[in-house]
Amino acid sequence: MKNSKIIASLDLVDSKQILDLAEKISSDIFAIKINWPTIMSCGVEIIDHLSKYAKVICDLKIADIPYTNEKIAGIASSHGAWGMISHIFPGEDSLKAVIKGAKGAKVFGVVSMSNPDSEKMLNGNWQTMIKMAKVNGIYGIVAPANNQDLLIKIRKDAENLKIISPGSIFQGGDPLLTLENGADYVIIGRGIYESKDPVEFVNNFNGLCKRNNLLSS
Amino acid sequence: MKNSKIIASLDLVDSKQILDLAEKISSDIFAIKINWPTIMSCGVEIIDHLSKYAKVICDLKIADIPYTNEKIAGIASSHGAWGMISHIFPGEDSLKAVIKGAKGAKVFGVVSMSNPDSEKMLNGNWQTMIKMAKVNGIYGIVAPANNQDLLIKIRKDAENLKIISPGSIFQGGDPLLTLENGADYVIIGRGIYESKDPVEFVNNFNGLCKRNNLLSS
Repeated sequence: MKNSKIIASLDLVDSKQILDLAEKISSDIFAIKINWPTIMSCGVEIIDHLSKYAKVICDLKIADIPYTNEKIAGIASSHGAWGMISHIFPGEDSLKAVIKGAKGAKVFGVVSMSNPDSEKMLNGNWQTMIKMAKVNGIYGIVAPANNQDLLIKIRKDAENLKIISPGSIFQGGDPLLTLENGADYVIIGRGIYESKDPVEFVNNFNGLCKRNNLLSS
Repeated sequence: MKNSKIIASLDLVDSKQILDLAEKISSDIFAIKINWPTIMSCGVEIIDHLSKYAKVICDLKIADIPYTNEKIAGIASSHGAWGMISHIFPGEDSLKAVIKGAKGAKVFGVVSMSNPDSEKMLNGNWQTMIKMAKVNGIYGIVAPANNQDLLIKIRKDAENLKIISPGSIFQGGDPLLTLENGADYVIIGRGIYESKDPVEFVNNFNGLCKRNNLLSS
């Protein structure tokens, strides 16, 4: 579905299961997200395979020195990643290297996380990190679905940056409320792949979005 | 060499080149470090292969939510990693999950980085992060070889934590001074694999350490 608000997080470790799921739900979602356990277990070629079904966002939480960041982003991009998630906290030089390595693939920067202890150091810097995201012209940012007060503040400050939000359902966030509060897409993982019928789950959620006038963009 | 102070960073992307180098230098170093570009390009099995030659430290800069961190650490451990590098910045719950996933493999936490822009957010929190490292009983921390003033402060505060230091040579750090200032091991990458004779480089540096009475521990 062209305007679905769902990024399906297929953060699994079995290639067949991932590709079967991708085939089933790809026409009803915006994009697929995978992470390091997926790439470690299935090989980096899983990005190429998934790209045949949908846009692939590699959730790599890139957080190394510039020299290494550029390489990580470059490899993901060369395997067909449509987008990738990078940390911003290691500094602007590291973020610039991700953008350079991504060679046009969309970069999403983490400005806050959904685990409770991220409050202590990382989340407190969200304004500084949004500023860096804007100055460097990245495509979007990652902000949590399980902290709606923070999400509302981030939405106001983020201007044209796309917001993608993890932390729904299993981590306590309400995905519909997350979209109403300004996220452009919600990342849903276990909510989809641990449901009895992932296709039904996705269709129901798209229907819910439609009834709440959230599918216009 | 049992008491070498060198961690050889074989952060390359060609399996054959990495394994050839490992075979040549493994008896004269403390451990081998690899990173994400290596695992993406060679497959996670490179850890198993390298483990036959030397201790392998996976420099994964783990920085995700607890659920994912535990999986990343678990996969690295199951492939024979002796140790792994994790960020501490995302919070204590995330660090605890790495320790749990590592199943006895040594965890090294990043308390500061070697890229200049890491000063802004990450490095300023080094004291908080050392406290977390101590409380959670991890094996060691990562502190930069290209900021000796900070390294000296970190050494004083780190007590029994082992310190491993990247940022030598190509990033401006003096590896011998780094050891004299309290690092337990220096991480040398391009200095080794871009040298004309990596074996000679390693032996020379071990000799230099010996003459400076740095090989006692």
